Amino acid sequence: MDSSSAYLFSGLDEGQMKKIMAIGKEIPMKKGQQIFREGQEANGVYVLRRGAVELMTVLEKDFDLPISLLRNPGDVFGSSALVPPYQYSLSARCVEEGTLFCMETKALRELALEDHDIGFQIMTNLAEYFLERVKETRQEVKIHFKTLLSSTRS
Amino acid sequence: MDSSSAYLFSGLDEGQMKKIMAIGKEIPMKKGQQIFREGQEANGVYVLRRGAVELMTVLEKDFDLPISLLRNPGDVFGSSALVPPYQYSLSARCVEEGTLFCMETKALRELALEDHDIGFQIMTNLAEYFLERVKETRQEVKIHFKTLLSSTRS
Repeated sequence: MDSSSAYLFSGLDEGQMKKIMAIGKEIPMKKGQQIFREGQEANGVYVLRRGAVELMTVLEKDFDLPISLLRNPGDVFGSSALVPPYQYSLSARCVEEGTLFCMETKALRELALEDHDIGFQIMTNLAEYFLERVKETRQEVKIHFKTLLSSTRS
Repeated sequence: MDSSSAYLFSGLDEGQMKKIMAIGKEIPMKKGQQIFREGQEANGVYVLRRGAVELMTVLEKDFDLPISLLRNPGDVFGSSALVPPYQYSLSARCVEEGTLFCMETKALRELALEDHDIGFQIMTNLAEYFLERVKETRQEVKIHFKTLLSSTRS
């Protein structure tokens, strides 16, 4: 796993990583395949091994807003599976055939609860990641507001 | 502390809460007082005891966009102090005289590192809280996009 982009596991040592690797398995994905949908009960956390995945959010019926395109081996997605309400906050679709590493959410949460050293590290990484997403999304809101402001002024 | 709204400490037992209370102190705040500014190095995590605090983000020079108004005793703010880059992601200003409980960030982070049971619980709460903020902010982006879509269609 490319540890540089696998933010979720940053800071874990080799022994801890072995425990995590033990609860996952590789699965193939085909172009166009829906991996999961926004709002679904989240049963797996995914690491991209090969290929590309698009993350989207439902804007309205039959209209999804693209949020990001993952194509770096090691990219993690579906991590909202680890916090209440344990649902996917986005939809994920394969846009280029490849391989995923899928960790069963239940097993990963149990491991974090049993071993609070692992749990602390994962949850710290997750909090940092979500805070970055808050700032990024807030930045988009600001762009919209600025556009509104400038159209009011002109 | 009103534990119902102090999301950061949810799930901690009495003994753990005592350790946390020991590293904080009460401070008064006056109406109009700037508590901290967005982007500043974050030295404290705050719990509202009495009064009201407004959280804002800088839209452009001399123009702040209000994000939320806190008026429930137990409301926590400044929690971005606990994750890298250890900076406030918003500005906070007192809008109604009152009292804050301020915990020194360094001491709180040390406590979380020393005691991974406390650390795991706090970081889990924080990840959950930031994920909620991501969804809430994404919702705002969607509203803007829908407005754009409907104006294009009409």
